[in-house]
Amino acid sequence: MPSAVVGMVGGGQLARMTQQVAIGLGIELQVLTPHDWDPAVLAGARFVPGDPADLEALFTLAKGCDVVTFDHEHVPNAHLRALVESGHVVHPEPSTKLLAQDKSIARRVLGDAGFAVPAHMDVAAGDTEATIRFGEANGWPLVVKTPRGGYDGRGVHVVASPTDLLDQAGSLSYDRWLVEAHVDIAVELAVLVARRPGGQSVIYPAVETVQRDGTCRELVMPARVSEAVAARAEELAAAVAERIGATGVLAVELFVTTGGDLVVNELAARPHNSGHATIEAATTSQFENHLRAVLDWPLGAPTLVAPAAATVNLLGPPHPIDLARTVPHALADPAVHLHLYGKAYAPGRKLGHVTVLADDPDTALRGARSAADTVLGR
Amino acid sequence: MPSAVVGMVGGGQLARMTQQVAIGLGIELQVLTPHDWDPAVLAGARFVPGDPADLEALFTLAKGCDVVTFDHEHVPNAHLRALVESGHVVHPEPSTKLLAQDKSIARRVLGDAGFAVPAHMDVAAGDTEATIRFGEANGWPLVVKTPRGGYDGRGVHVVASPTDLLDQAGSLSYDRWLVEAHVDIAVELAVLVARRPGGQSVIYPAVETVQRDGTCRELVMPARVSEAVAARAEELAAAVAERIGATGVLAVELFVTTGGDLVVNELAARPHNSGHATIEAATTSQFENHLRAVLDWPLGAPTLVAPAAATVNLLGPPHPIDLARTVPHALADPAVHLHLYGKAYAPGRKLGHVTVLADDPDTALRGARSAADTVLGR
Repeated sequence: MPSAVVGMVGGGQLARMTQQVAIGLGIELQVLTPHDWDPAVLAGARFVPGDPADLEALFTLAKGCDVVTFDHEHVPNAHLRALVESGHVVHPEPSTKLLAQDKSIARRVLGDAGFAVPAHMDVAAGDTEATIRFGEANGWPLVVKTPRGGYDGRGVHVVASPTDLLDQAGSLSYDRWLVEAHVDIAVELAVLVARRPGGQSVIYPAVETVQRDGTCRELVMPARVSEAVAARAEELAAAVAERIGATGVLAVELFVTTGGDLVVNELAARPHNSGHATIEAATTSQFENHLRAVLDWPLGAPTLVAPAAATVNLLGPPHPIDLARTVPHALADPAVHLHLYGKAYAPGRKLGHVTVLADDPDTALRGARSAADTVLGR
Repeated sequence: MPSAVVGMVGGGQLARMTQQVAIGLGIELQVLTPHDWDPAVLAGARFVPGDPADLEALFTLAKGCDVVTFDHEHVPNAHLRALVESGHVVHPEPSTKLLAQDKSIARRVLGDAGFAVPAHMDVAAGDTEATIRFGEANGWPLVVKTPRGGYDGRGVHVVASPTDLLDQAGSLSYDRWLVEAHVDIAVELAVLVARRPGGQSVIYPAVETVQRDGTCRELVMPARVSEAVAARAEELAAAVAERIGATGVLAVELFVTTGGDLVVNELAARPHNSGHATIEAATTSQFENHLRAVLDWPLGAPTLVAPAAATVNLLGPPHPIDLARTVPHALADPAVHLHLYGKAYAPGRKLGHVTVLADDPDTALRGARSAADTVLGR
């Protein structure tokens, strides 16, 4: 009956928005996720209960599906290799997924392949001597990161000086330290590439990502950078996707330095927060192209249907909000597109996002900010 | 948790596409429908099992919802009045719904209000004498219809002459006959209006509907008629919606006669087959605006994001099709938007639709036809 069955590891908002497009394509989406109140399950994806770190649960998911894919990075890479060795189709492949899971390996692989990455060094956790030597060679401040498991700014620490390092060292209790040069950032960009196993790919216009306290707050598409910088970023992302054999959506996060250079920061091998505006602003959304890519179906056009779009994330405010009351007010602007994730309120939690299309980025951003403020009761 | 709970009578493809947008709005959609394999249930709408003709089932649906609305017309109007009398919110209201359920009453109400409708007369079923007198007064051929329950051309009969009438009369076994003058049709149009209880409304651009064997096959938006005709059609639809106090989406189906006149044909008081292209081609789709309207939330913009769009319905061909094989081929055109309804194959059954946006209607239509042919294995 369905045109295909796709298994997704994780049932969060990215799986939820994938479910919305799976419906139209006649695809049955199954999600491996712990709770029946997770966002994708509430949206009607078939619930495969389990922990993505549990190999048996992953096999249960894989057995019923044409392909296994992901809405997050938190799954043991060895388990993915075990699925592939057992004959299951997994996209992106474990070797690609590893680069999104381990920043240290990503730095090495991309650096070795000739892509610009920040100066970096792996050190044993707590090795302040080696870290100070790195700082002396590359300058202060520097950045200490956990290579794995960090997200939304967690696991990333700016260290101002040797003294500051010695002060912070006790709390940086990760298995290993990835020590990096601090980059003077002019703008942060993300470029999404959707790529099929055979190599056909489409590239979305570069998105400007605005972070605050380590969390992405706002997105502007296309990014407010020169056409030349945008074109270089898009070419770079396509080259990375090709080099690492990405399948499905790959998000390439980039820094534009104050000197005008492009540096690859992180990879995400799945649909990505930075591409939410593609739902309304692109001919084919990142979620639809992710499904098409992992199924090795032809890809839809990534072209924009409006000159500009902006997305503002809805982060839970300090006090609970009554959506039944605030949502209608936020929709008073007829250009507003609202996406709620069906999550229980918590301060700082990503509860949804708002997208507005407009003739220019600033107008779009003003509209999206205003609607987001209204939803959040500000 | 949800921003609102909407109960929909019927769980077909219109409810399925409503479910897709309900997800983003944080709305829980509950559907009253007989089978757990109905299209909206497969898409994750909450299943309220039951027959829409069963008053108790309607009350069960209504009790859990902020508002009751519809994906079809087949529900006893007296039951809807009973819901309202018990304090439940029903949109569209029973008096509006009645005009979509009974063509004879719609003709009378709209005609009395001064809207152009075909010459018509109610006669007792089988009263060939009265019917022949109508034909003598209004000319042959004429049309005999069932006032209630017809769809997709079923229940509509063109009668060429008195002899033809006497030949056909035995098979026209309806409770009553609605006898109408035959209209010489140049183009058929549909205009969708979304209207809130307080009167705020938005009007979508007039759509050209192409019927074959009584079933809608193709849709072109905007319609290939002069701007003046389109504007008159849109004004007429808005006036009808206002006059009858429509809430939610009202589809006004119109004939443009060969003489250039506009005549109101039928009403549908729910999201409508003619508006599928609004999913991709309008800022806010008919499905989202239906939800917003019945909840008395502000409406989204009905403006088009592309110069033209065409939709081709996927009707089950004579022989079964293997979607897993044909769908990827149909997506080879990157402009194609596919919507499958999750239905089991049957010859003539509406299995889905394809929409293509383009710079002009003919290009869009060519693209949509080609993709539809491919899905259907032609």
